[in-house]
Amino acid sequence: MKSITPLQKARYEYQPKLPTALQQDIKHIIAVRGSATESFADQQEIKQLFTHTYGQPIVSFEAGVSAMNFEAIKVGVILSGGQAPGGHNVIAGLFDGIKRANAGSKLYGFLGGPSGLLEANYIEITSDLMDEYRNTGGFDMIQSGRTKLESTEQFDRVLENAKLLQLNALVVIGGDDSNTNGAVLAEYFKSKNSPIQVIGCPKTIDGDLKNQFIETSFGFDTAAKTYAELIGNIARDASSARKYWHFIKLMGRSASHIALECALQTHPNVCLISEEVETKKMTLASVVEEIAQSVMKRAEKGWNFGVVLIPEGLIEFIPEIKQLIAELNDLVSEKSSEFSIITDIDEKIHWIKNHLEAESTAVYASLPKEIQLQLILDRDPHGNVQVSLIETDKLLASMVSSYLEKAHREGLYKGKFSPLGHFFGYEGRCAFPSNFDADYCYSLGYTSFLLIANGLTGYISSLRELQRPASEWIAGGIPLTMMMNMEKRHGERKPVIRKALVDLNGKPFQHFVRIRERWAVENDYAYPGAIQYYGPTEVCDQGTLTLSLEKNR
Amino acid sequence: MKSITPLQKARYEYQPKLPTALQQDIKHIIAVRGSATESFADQQEIKQLFTHTYGQPIVSFEAGVSAMNFEAIKVGVILSGGQAPGGHNVIAGLFDGIKRANAGSKLYGFLGGPSGLLEANYIEITSDLMDEYRNTGGFDMIQSGRTKLESTEQFDRVLENAKLLQLNALVVIGGDDSNTNGAVLAEYFKSKNSPIQVIGCPKTIDGDLKNQFIETSFGFDTAAKTYAELIGNIARDASSARKYWHFIKLMGRSASHIALECALQTHPNVCLISEEVETKKMTLASVVEEIAQSVMKRAEKGWNFGVVLIPEGLIEFIPEIKQLIAELNDLVSEKSSEFSIITDIDEKIHWIKNHLEAESTAVYASLPKEIQLQLILDRDPHGNVQVSLIETDKLLASMVSSYLEKAHREGLYKGKFSPLGHFFGYEGRCAFPSNFDADYCYSLGYTSFLLIANGLTGYISSLRELQRPASEWIAGGIPLTMMMNMEKRHGERKPVIRKALVDLNGKPFQHFVRIRERWAVENDYAYPGAIQYYGPTEVCDQGTLTLSLEKNR
Repeated sequence: MKSITPLQKARYEYQPKLPTALQQDIKHIIAVRGSATESFADQQEIKQLFTHTYGQPIVSFEAGVSAMNFEAIKVGVILSGGQAPGGHNVIAGLFDGIKRANAGSKLYGFLGGPSGLLEANYIEITSDLMDEYRNTGGFDMIQSGRTKLESTEQFDRVLENAKLLQLNALVVIGGDDSNTNGAVLAEYFKSKNSPIQVIGCPKTIDGDLKNQFIETSFGFDTAAKTYAELIGNIARDASSARKYWHFIKLMGRSASHIALECALQTHPNVCLISEEVETKKMTLASVVEEIAQSVMKRAEKGWNFGVVLIPEGLIEFIPEIKQLIAELNDLVSEKSSEFSIITDIDEKIHWIKNHLEAESTAVYASLPKEIQLQLILDRDPHGNVQVSLIETDKLLASMVSSYLEKAHREGLYKGKFSPLGHFFGYEGRCAFPSNFDADYCYSLGYTSFLLIANGLTGYISSLRELQRPASEWIAGGIPLTMMMNMEKRHGERKPVIRKALVDLNGKPFQHFVRIRERWAVENDYAYPGAIQYYGPTEVCDQGTLTLSLEKNR
Repeated sequence: MKSITPLQKARYEYQPKLPTALQQDIKHIIAVRGSATESFADQQEIKQLFTHTYGQPIVSFEAGVSAMNFEAIKVGVILSGGQAPGGHNVIAGLFDGIKRANAGSKLYGFLGGPSGLLEANYIEITSDLMDEYRNTGGFDMIQSGRTKLESTEQFDRVLENAKLLQLNALVVIGGDDSNTNGAVLAEYFKSKNSPIQVIGCPKTIDGDLKNQFIETSFGFDTAAKTYAELIGNIARDASSARKYWHFIKLMGRSASHIALECALQTHPNVCLISEEVETKKMTLASVVEEIAQSVMKRAEKGWNFGVVLIPEGLIEFIPEIKQLIAELNDLVSEKSSEFSIITDIDEKIHWIKNHLEAESTAVYASLPKEIQLQLILDRDPHGNVQVSLIETDKLLASMVSSYLEKAHREGLYKGKFSPLGHFFGYEGRCAFPSNFDADYCYSLGYTSFLLIANGLTGYISSLRELQRPASEWIAGGIPLTMMMNMEKRHGERKPVIRKALVDLNGKPFQHFVRIRERWAVENDYAYPGAIQYYGPTEVCDQGTLTLSLEKNR
């Protein structure tokens, strides 16, 4: 009953590229082990928490005579968290690996993410089923979910279900949290003398699961390119119509990698980076001014159009807004009865202004009226402000507009300002994976099979030297404990994989800083166009600019 | 200073495909003239208004011995109205044609649309400039504009400027209005004994400039495919995450061709068609019910997710909403002083309800509060409701939500409903033209040159049999008067090119009707993916499904 489009049909035929070492007959791939490792930080604490899995060596796969186990095995796989292009190819690489080693091996997909594991809700992934999903986007084969595996009770249920299914190993495809949980699960299994192995795979379009061993998380490449396609189209529309300023909000709640990559690809007039805003303790007014200055300088050239990129999480990185939201949450919950009887909108706003601290009163007063209303009217079931619903694109556009009106009255600005808002998120999470993501994911999956076949647990599948052609990638496994440090979460110190925010000293951001002043005032837009899967290699086989700059090609 | 992406560089090398007849040396292309023609309707009136250009024959270009004029000529070109992918290729086809005929010929581009013509604001399009824009999206080479050429005074200025530049011909690239104006201009020039020729080209992503001779307007193919890419990605996300209903508003103020084509490509659960809503005199409640029924039936299967497509202009096609807006406009302007002194929001709404006619009061009361507010607070400078700003996606989502709450109370619905809104418009207007649009536009431009070289005026460039490979297309010219009828515009009867709305008896809509009930309840989403310019011909050289169904291949 499924409808197959021409592109989907053509993508079924695509054979993902593997590193040379992995192209060998599996009897000729050996796992080379390095020396003992340490965690990034807090070594003593983490060692104590991971007594069975701490300090394992980095593993890399090379040509040689294999010492692998080729008996039939049973492996379970789960997708955890938000969709990212290429998830199906991780499963395909894993599937092909275990079947190549032994046709009697079985792969089970737990449905709906970690909850499928808790409820033993699974399907066997057969060859026919697998073939329907090769090189496709989405997680629809087995779906995903956001249940967190954290408690001992959950681990016991997972262990029980895994035993019932006679699983040899579990592959967890997820972001930093899911891989942290994978590490804890691997340790737990060992502590219970269970031989069940746990292997992680680095997924997230946000690009924030990244370090010296995980050069990028999968999905980032495709998602960023899809957004860049749209931003480029809009920039071309802006410079054709010459009458709108487009405010484009992009996915990225905590890290701004996507906004930065899209900026590098499309050259917008302004791109805000949450990490910079936070580090420099920028006020809302200074963010608004940065945009308005570009608008004014361009208006002097007769260009009343432009493009602004805004990471989704920006507003929470502005210290004064964070403070305002905290106060509003307290205030409305403490004085709920007093506040709720006021029906006149203006009186409500007046009441709020009278009850906030002086600094927050000023910030609140500076906001456009619709945002003032949104902040006091739209509450979640706990009475809290719903930050994620605040339309940052409209907020900034409205405040830039007020700034310009003032500048106009003072004779400093004579342009016309017509803003339009956009938000791109769901458009990119389930695109057909780019060739890079298709290859990378398939290799990640195949590598996770090799890690399993070599009896390893508590590892994350890793491909390095990703700036090179796929044949030159280095496949291996990184001990999950190695990527950890201790962080406070909900008031408790926890071992976690460090989230990779945009490094303000890193090459991608530094490159952006060197060039952004020119972009602010020139029309130097670049138009990446739609992701191409066929055609010239420079069009269809390149990774992101972030990766390229980080690896300093 | 321009930044050229890898795809853009690759597209520069693309050689658009021409019909076989046009691939000949231009000395071997002849214009074959048919017999005299009539307008679609109102023949007598239109004949009287177009005494010099009425009744001209259809022209087609075939292999033969040319009777063309190969002297050096000067041609002006303008882009009119909204951006559509392929505009630059029309100019490229025209440019290559006139230069091939005589290297001394010149092409001038008037800047910013028709106003460039009025103000003699132009550039010469040189070979170097042209090469920067081949096969690219956007109208940024010479920009576009929305000034209408309608008055005799304007025509005189156009004639004067054209004479000063010694133009032999003018090519107007635009939609139905612009081509109507082109027809009037051609007639006017003739009536003034000016030999300056006027040729039109059919542009609009909305797809509403269409008839038996103009099989599609350019840009529709690329824009619809770009939106379908995004809708497919979102549908895949919906069926992966399984928790959101996506309400997607699409461009198309008066015609729903884009929504229909996107539906045919992606198989959403619901796609509303404005023409059907109007013809069936559907109420807002019945539109809401149609969506809610799909939500409820899917919820019974455990599927609390889906995709709804909504044409931008929908709300104006619902008779009762049209009536409500008219009453609101009258009311607030007549009783402005009485209304404006009320500051309490609830009192304002109460006042409105007391002053509308009974039917409109009921409709108004049925709307969600934020839309009620929007209708009375957001006014344009004339005090009118800003219909285009009404967020139809959110309006419908909110009303479906209310419907479901009621159904839930009555025990008829136990699902979860989490809607998300999207609007796609600017994302598709400036994409790199698909191979179809690149070929079609280049052929349109080349054909417009042939029409000029054959001394014709008052024609629109035409390619037919577009469902076949480009080599088999039939190139020619259609007299603009032939596509006209009389319509009331601003109270006056005017000769205009008939706008092509979705034909409810046509094959694309009928096909949709046969299949939509299944789509409403099944997960039969199709994922077209990004437009491909390279690769298998079935992936990168197909036209739209609308065209394919209309031509009944």
